Amino acid sequence: MRGTMMDYPLTLIHILERVGKLFPEVDVLSRLPDRSLHRYTYADFYRRARALAEALQKSGLRRGDRVATLMWNHYAHLEAYYGIPAAGGVTHTLNLRLAPQDIAYIANHAADRFLIVDDILLPLYEKLKNSTQFERVIVVPLTAEPVGPGFENYEEFISASSGQFDYPNLEENEAASMCYTSGTTGRPKGVVFTHRSVVLHTLIETTADNFAISHNDVLLPVVSMFHVNGWGLPFSAALTGCKLVLPGPHLDAESLLELMETQNVTVAAGVPTVWLNVIENLEKNPGRWKLLPMRVLVGGAAPPVALIRKLDQYGIRLIQGWGLTESSPEATTNQLKAYMQSWSDEEKYAVTAMAGIPTPLTELRIVSEDGEVPRDGKTMGEIQLRGAWVASSYYNLPEEKNKWTDDGWLRTGDVGVLDQHGYLKVADRTKDLVKSGGEWISSLDLENALVAHPDVREAAVIAVSHPKWQERPVAFIVAKDGAQPAPKELREFLADKFAKWQVPDAFVFVDELPHTSTGKLLKTELRRRCQDWKWET
Amino acid sequence: MRGTMMDYPLTLIHILERVGKLFPEVDVLSRLPDRSLHRYTYADFYRRARALAEALQKSGLRRGDRVATLMWNHYAHLEAYYGIPAAGGVTHTLNLRLAPQDIAYIANHAADRFLIVDDILLPLYEKLKNSTQFERVIVVPLTAEPVGPGFENYEEFISASSGQFDYPNLEENEAASMCYTSGTTGRPKGVVFTHRSVVLHTLIETTADNFAISHNDVLLPVVSMFHVNGWGLPFSAALTGCKLVLPGPHLDAESLLELMETQNVTVAAGVPTVWLNVIENLEKNPGRWKLLPMRVLVGGAAPPVALIRKLDQYGIRLIQGWGLTESSPEATTNQLKAYMQSWSDEEKYAVTAMAGIPTPLTELRIVSEDGEVPRDGKTMGEIQLRGAWVASSYYNLPEEKNKWTDDGWLRTGDVGVLDQHGYLKVADRTKDLVKSGGEWISSLDLENALVAHPDVREAAVIAVSHPKWQERPVAFIVAKDGAQPAPKELREFLADKFAKWQVPDAFVFVDELPHTSTGKLLKTELRRRCQDWKWET
Repeated sequence: MRGTMMDYPLTLIHILERVGKLFPEVDVLSRLPDRSLHRYTYADFYRRARALAEALQKSGLRRGDRVATLMWNHYAHLEAYYGIPAAGGVTHTLNLRLAPQDIAYIANHAADRFLIVDDILLPLYEKLKNSTQFERVIVVPLTAEPVGPGFENYEEFISASSGQFDYPNLEENEAASMCYTSGTTGRPKGVVFTHRSVVLHTLIETTADNFAISHNDVLLPVVSMFHVNGWGLPFSAALTGCKLVLPGPHLDAESLLELMETQNVTVAAGVPTVWLNVIENLEKNPGRWKLLPMRVLVGGAAPPVALIRKLDQYGIRLIQGWGLTESSPEATTNQLKAYMQSWSDEEKYAVTAMAGIPTPLTELRIVSEDGEVPRDGKTMGEIQLRGAWVASSYYNLPEEKNKWTDDGWLRTGDVGVLDQHGYLKVADRTKDLVKSGGEWISSLDLENALVAHPDVREAAVIAVSHPKWQERPVAFIVAKDGAQPAPKELREFLADKFAKWQVPDAFVFVDELPHTSTGKLLKTELRRRCQDWKWET
Repeated sequence: MRGTMMDYPLTLIHILERVGKLFPEVDVLSRLPDRSLHRYTYADFYRRARALAEALQKSGLRRGDRVATLMWNHYAHLEAYYGIPAAGGVTHTLNLRLAPQDIAYIANHAADRFLIVDDILLPLYEKLKNSTQFERVIVVPLTAEPVGPGFENYEEFISASSGQFDYPNLEENEAASMCYTSGTTGRPKGVVFTHRSVVLHTLIETTADNFAISHNDVLLPVVSMFHVNGWGLPFSAALTGCKLVLPGPHLDAESLLELMETQNVTVAAGVPTVWLNVIENLEKNPGRWKLLPMRVLVGGAAPPVALIRKLDQYGIRLIQGWGLTESSPEATTNQLKAYMQSWSDEEKYAVTAMAGIPTPLTELRIVSEDGEVPRDGKTMGEIQLRGAWVASSYYNLPEEKNKWTDDGWLRTGDVGVLDQHGYLKVADRTKDLVKSGGEWISSLDLENALVAHPDVREAAVIAVSHPKWQERPVAFIVAKDGAQPAPKELREFLADKFAKWQVPDAFVFVDELPHTSTGKLLKTELRRRCQDWKWET
């Protein structure tokens, strides 16, 4: 028996129309390359996003065609987020931190027809120009520099619009945007998000038990808009009509703190490294910035408990999310359950440091060789996902079907455990676990413990092959400015938290650690450095 | 171009599985007929709802078959809300406040196969037994009375389950539940909600800018579960895993206040009359009940500003929603926009008394004879809706297609205006407007103003035909205990808020006003009383 409900597709056009009609007066701020603030309202955004849609259609964009963006977080990128799908196209965000040949590979694999690029990123575009065939290259003039020959000026491109754009009749399962996984191993792989999956993901981010994005918020997404739809936050902002603060290319802690203070930011989002830097700046400059009580959404890597505690001291509540490009990305969110509210701080921090519970419309299971693992807080297995915004394949890569189980779950490649409350703890990437003498050691646990040491700024633990134990952990340490912790001291610091055999055998002190373009530790590089490691005997 | 996302249907099975797995330890409380509290957890609920699904299938329930419920708000009704759809059936909630012949008409029109009925409602069932043909009548034993011959005992019915129930593979557009409009005019008409529409509506109720239902809440739905899915709250409760307090048949203010205090209720929901009674009890018994800061969700009729103010004084924030059975019901929610937070109390209360802005996934327009009305706060027209949980037809009533416009919007039959901020103010039902000398007078505005008078408990204004003005307003007044306001006094009280020609010509003092079974003023009855009205000349 069918219901009597309307057939109402979930599309980004709804969000665009909603913010244009209900929140036209709300500000959208963007930091420009010269550090000045570009300020307009959702009314301007609405007009210009529709103008972009009209201009793209007039330029021959057909339903489903890909339009690439090579841009920082700012108003024009926001317009692209809506204008391209509203025209029936697919926004393909290119990751500007990748090597030029990888960007070119990705643009070619997706068969992107047009490119919208920031003027300050033209030097990067020049490096991939010869390996790509964009039909049109539309340049956003963020600086006073004139747009050169061979390019179209974004402002001129959208200025020809009539204002009378008619949306196509989109179905909700049509593609809205796509993003390639940053790929610590192998070739980048494309995930294609649908209008439906984006709208549902957006609704979840605005629910009270997830990020609770509200029109009373002032939202600062530090996470790049070229990375998994900017964690969906540019959509949550418009759905709720909250004030949006986009940091442009200035992602250093001082620039961010200045925006947080002057714009009264109430919620911000980024990888742990961003907040480690923010804390370091707050500690170095007591009283310099006056911040409102804030919450920060953290993903991309597990935040150490020490970071959560310190943020708390500054009135900043950390909310952890976990997921991957293939899950749009939000698969779990960490909020305390009601009965945990009365627990001790210690116990609450321990929960907050985990990845949380699956969001509504997401299902999660952990599978070991013996089947689904029990909720015992210790049995590890591969984390697998199923849900309304989880990918079921990669774009044009049928040979990658091994990434899914026979019964249709995504194999994330992450290893984790579930505690008795149903909270996920991500132990490691499968390949990052240390297998020592038949036992597994979690490098993440060691890293989290190490950064709690007052002299340690950042830590990375990898497995190095060992003649007797198969593998043993080696820790790379970035000390805080001026500090020189001794290996013996660090070993003692870990002694009461870990079994003796779990403590790293060696500590390597470095000035900085290698990261991927999305802020994750690049352990492959550390492993490379240790290829010829000789253990002291 | 299709996306690469999983095909993941939105069904109530997801909510049931989620609460069973993630929130098994949370309490669900039900007030029984003898006033004692029935207490169990979502783990029990989960097991029993699945047992009900299995028992229904074993009893021959086929996909899409209707199972009627004739029940108060309690654990077994909650089990029916999930167990019936999880078996592939359709929950058809019967309104126990209707006349027996209307209930029978509705059950027959929907072709309900089975009935689940509270034992204390068997006297009502006896009155409709001869006009209906339920194949099975399953009685929920809420009291110690044995279940008589000819009936099945609900507890025995579900006790035979194996615990190994396999869900059917539901599509999201299949029917999950149905409800007939209470019908102030004409025959009741059925609305059939789909799994998809219910899940989407549930997500919206949990968003920060709507009801923000959270697992940290303790939720008391006073609104009956036989009325539009209990405003969806039994679904929001399970999706978030919040503690649920169900009041059973005891809906008097004292019983409710006692539950609010002892169960630490943080959010409750019901029609304005409920809260008027609650306030009267709080005022009569200062200090008797200690309540947590609460929010109350109010719908079904517009709450007067005076009520909003008084609730505020007790730390209770009123959130207004507006909608109808045909919109599941939530179509608008009233929360202040960010820039209104700095307004004066006076201005904020004026906004809070309106119906609010459309929820995400709902669109609203107001249409007069001249087309869509401007946002000027004064041009009235019919409120029309479109959205993801708005009905597109009535069940088996193709002749009622006049209820929808040619371009597919629901004609609500309510008249309203939009202010410059996009907020809806419901002026009246079309038929409740007073047309005096070519001008329209809003009876709702007059009623709201009248209940602000210290001696007035409730007020209803209707149009009475008039030889000169076509129609003139007549006010029915229920005075507060012991008070005897004079018409002259009330007229003066209205004088500074209304034009002289808008003030009622007559005041009729009564002990109580007639209400529909869902708490709305039954103006048809008042009009009937005024059929032979003679104006003083």
